[in-house]
Amino acid sequence: MAERAETTGDLHLATVVVNVQDMQRAVAFWSAALGYQPREAEWDPSFMMLVDPQGRRVPVSLQLTDAPPREPARVHVDLYTREQGRHVDRLVALGATRVDDWPYPQDADFIVLRDTEGNAFCVIDHPEL
Amino acid sequence: MAERAETTGDLHLATVVVNVQDMQRAVAFWSAALGYQPREAEWDPSFMMLVDPQGRRVPVSLQLTDAPPREPARVHVDLYTREQGRHVDRLVALGATRVDDWPYPQDADFIVLRDTEGNAFCVIDHPEL
Repeated sequence: MAERAETTGDLHLATVVVNVQDMQRAVAFWSAALGYQPREAEWDPSFMMLVDPQGRRVPVSLQLTDAPPREPARVHVDLYTREQGRHVDRLVALGATRVDDWPYPQDADFIVLRDTEGNAFCVIDHPEL
Repeated sequence: MAERAETTGDLHLATVVVNVQDMQRAVAFWSAALGYQPREAEWDPSFMMLVDPQGRRVPVSLQLTDAPPREPARVHVDLYTREQGRHVDRLVALGATRVDDWPYPQDADFIVLRDTEGNAFCVIDHPEL
């Protein structure tokens, strides 16, 4: 373990970068969704990092693109909560879209949404991880 | 702030899910890359969650797919380190591929790699976040 720690050193997964076509809309959505806030006071129309004010959770960065999402996505995020129904409703009210034609298994504990930019993510009925 | 905390409740970004076509190869790569380890002792060929043994960093989950990556990716991860050169070499030795034809800006502080499954990610010359 000591050897592994030395090898990986300070390398770490610092942020998840989500490409968006409308920066203002995406900042509003993801900030409200996760209770995050922009790291920098200055507005950068091409890149905004959103951070957990308590510093516990991984930052989400939004990066401007002109390319729409292409399916199937190779990377997505899973949000966990014990209040799945309430949060799905809340996220939809914030601008997310529920993906009702997803090929769900019968006992699915996850609900697939798209953010305001069309990026699919999951809300999973799961206690703290 | 109290209102926001109450609204977002326990919802949180619990894991980044990366789709892969070779689970064994991907588990080996990402475990060694980040110093993570499988959360469950049991092998699940369709889904493996890798966790930071110290519990500080966000887990990475690997999910089996039969779909190759399609560019441009809408979501990717950024890895930060103060030892960019050493880690890029180390990751390439572990099976990553350096993307040399990326349209880098002149003063780029990031290097784009692909994991063993073709998923692009960045290694950024950056101190702790």
